[in-house]
Amino acid sequence: MTGLLEDTIAAIGPLDAAAVAAARERQGLLTKPSGSLGRLEDVSVQLAGIAGQCPPPLPEPAVVAVFAADHGVHAQGVSPWPQEVTAQMVANFVASGAAVNAIATQAGASVCVVDVGVAADLPTAQGLLSRKVRPGTADMTEGPAMTLEEARLAVETGIKVAADLVEEGNRCLITGDMGIANTTASAALIAVFTGSTPALVTGRGTGIDDPTWARKVEVVRRALELHRCDPAAPLGTLSAVGGLEHAALAGFILGGAARRVPVLLDGVIACAAAVAARAFAPQVADYLIAGHLSTEPGALRALDALGLQPLLDLGMRLGEGSGAVLALPVVAAAARVLRDMATFDSAGVSSEKA
Amino acid sequence: MTGLLEDTIAAIGPLDAAAVAAARERQGLLTKPSGSLGRLEDVSVQLAGIAGQCPPPLPEPAVVAVFAADHGVHAQGVSPWPQEVTAQMVANFVASGAAVNAIATQAGASVCVVDVGVAADLPTAQGLLSRKVRPGTADMTEGPAMTLEEARLAVETGIKVAADLVEEGNRCLITGDMGIANTTASAALIAVFTGSTPALVTGRGTGIDDPTWARKVEVVRRALELHRCDPAAPLGTLSAVGGLEHAALAGFILGGAARRVPVLLDGVIACAAAVAARAFAPQVADYLIAGHLSTEPGALRALDALGLQPLLDLGMRLGEGSGAVLALPVVAAAARVLRDMATFDSAGVSSEKA
Repeated sequence: MTGLLEDTIAAIGPLDAAAVAAARERQGLLTKPSGSLGRLEDVSVQLAGIAGQCPPPLPEPAVVAVFAADHGVHAQGVSPWPQEVTAQMVANFVASGAAVNAIATQAGASVCVVDVGVAADLPTAQGLLSRKVRPGTADMTEGPAMTLEEARLAVETGIKVAADLVEEGNRCLITGDMGIANTTASAALIAVFTGSTPALVTGRGTGIDDPTWARKVEVVRRALELHRCDPAAPLGTLSAVGGLEHAALAGFILGGAARRVPVLLDGVIACAAAVAARAFAPQVADYLIAGHLSTEPGALRALDALGLQPLLDLGMRLGEGSGAVLALPVVAAAARVLRDMATFDSAGVSSEKA
Repeated sequence: MTGLLEDTIAAIGPLDAAAVAAARERQGLLTKPSGSLGRLEDVSVQLAGIAGQCPPPLPEPAVVAVFAADHGVHAQGVSPWPQEVTAQMVANFVASGAAVNAIATQAGASVCVVDVGVAADLPTAQGLLSRKVRPGTADMTEGPAMTLEEARLAVETGIKVAADLVEEGNRCLITGDMGIANTTASAALIAVFTGSTPALVTGRGTGIDDPTWARKVEVVRRALELHRCDPAAPLGTLSAVGGLEHAALAGFILGGAARRVPVLLDGVIACAAAVAARAFAPQVADYLIAGHLSTEPGALRALDALGLQPLLDLGMRLGEGSGAVLALPVVAAAARVLRDMATFDSAGVSSEKA
């Protein structure tokens, strides 16, 4: 079978080795002790490899795409929040009242919201893309969350959103998400793609109590037992236990990598989408920057599997893209250092004695 | 004895309890699960307590003050870099070619350089304040680094710089530093003020090899044995084993706190100055935000003593203020969240079920 998904996977190549080498060499010439900027140096080298040029362009403009969807598994009592909060929060994003809006404003990023599966009819609004694949998933404990065709459609929706945002000039894509109960689907996906047990990757989401957590672990366990997902079959796994926003985010990640634009990952929902994306295209991890470490336990398992180290670790667990966009200035500073700093030669600064 | 230093210490009061309580309460009303923004919530509450209002003003404009000075202990072979690099780097800062310039530009902060003791006559330049107390310290292994009067003058210079920058409208002060061999003086200061042994708080600075590190530890040990500093006597300790930039930074920190402006700390030099400042005025720590964790071991010891947790941990060890100004957008985001986010009531978002 061929289509947008397969073409996108095929377009994801390795980092540009010449640009990587040039960036690493240039870091050694800048007016600072070698290695003294730590992770900033590594990020700058990665950005050069992604863009295929040294110095790489600044990751500007940057955009947070908040993919919103609902979850049939909400019926299993995995969250104390009513499902209508998903739609209410979409309205809050559009009105610029949410955390991701405040942080994005600070970081100089824009926010767009993508309805890929909210279980309500949403009024049209500036900044809201209507890309509903279906009005929420089915309950994964009773059957597949969605059909294979719907999973593909959601992934390809994410690819198209990434392509459109890059086409509009964005040079950094930031993952965002909204969906009451979506940490349950995240736990199931991360369990499959990292080979973890449900208890290890199921977290407290918005802050649930012990009995609710125990129920949530049992829900994930039952879903995994029902579907017996194959981690080498990402579309099948997404259709069985995924969310529509997870599928779309997996496509968004693949789409950014295919267009050689860095993708800044938020918390556990983004991490679940990223391990799915890696199952489609192993090389995709080279294009990812982990913005922060969510307190959700699945995030760390997924980042380990992806070989990514988060930039920030501030005890955040909100989602929406809030932690990723908070890390944007760090990524931008990495690019700016490589582009703007003087070298020992150009500044007339003496080197250390051999 | 009374003077600017004593008046400044007397002006440092506790955080505003009413603003702290109001900020904590407002965090609970914003459209997010309680506590889900982690450290951002704590920072916003601290900023409210510092400013005495909720929401607090954004930390803008912000300025990095890079205090530059030389060190007589350089003669003991503690660094492979020639001393003239201090003056050369001052020229690099003024020409906007250093890391701190690139990162400050990204973060929207300005940079000012303060010559508080460079061992060379520096040409006047835009952005360079000539506040030389003496042209570098004396070698602390042979006698006091400076006189008590010079230490006081350097501290009061830092207080005045802070006062002037706040007077000019700055709402966030960021510590910066430059001085070849200044990690040696930092280690000595941190050893005194935290009661640590030299080997525990002496690091590799710009990246020295094992023999140089061993020599550096021995240099610190000899200096401490010679001076037998009293940690309850910060002016005496600064004059014995400090640097002119450490003394000025201690004053800068006190000056910011006295004017109820947050002070964002950089790495080990700033941490050494901060433990000295705390010896002058214990309450000063409430006004400090640790921008990042330097890889220098003394930084962690000092931050522990101050009760501060760093915002970033990116393996950086450059100084100049580079790590602190990199954290500025996080601090600003914390303030912006508290100021700009909608509440559950105002946005019409349902709360979780009890």
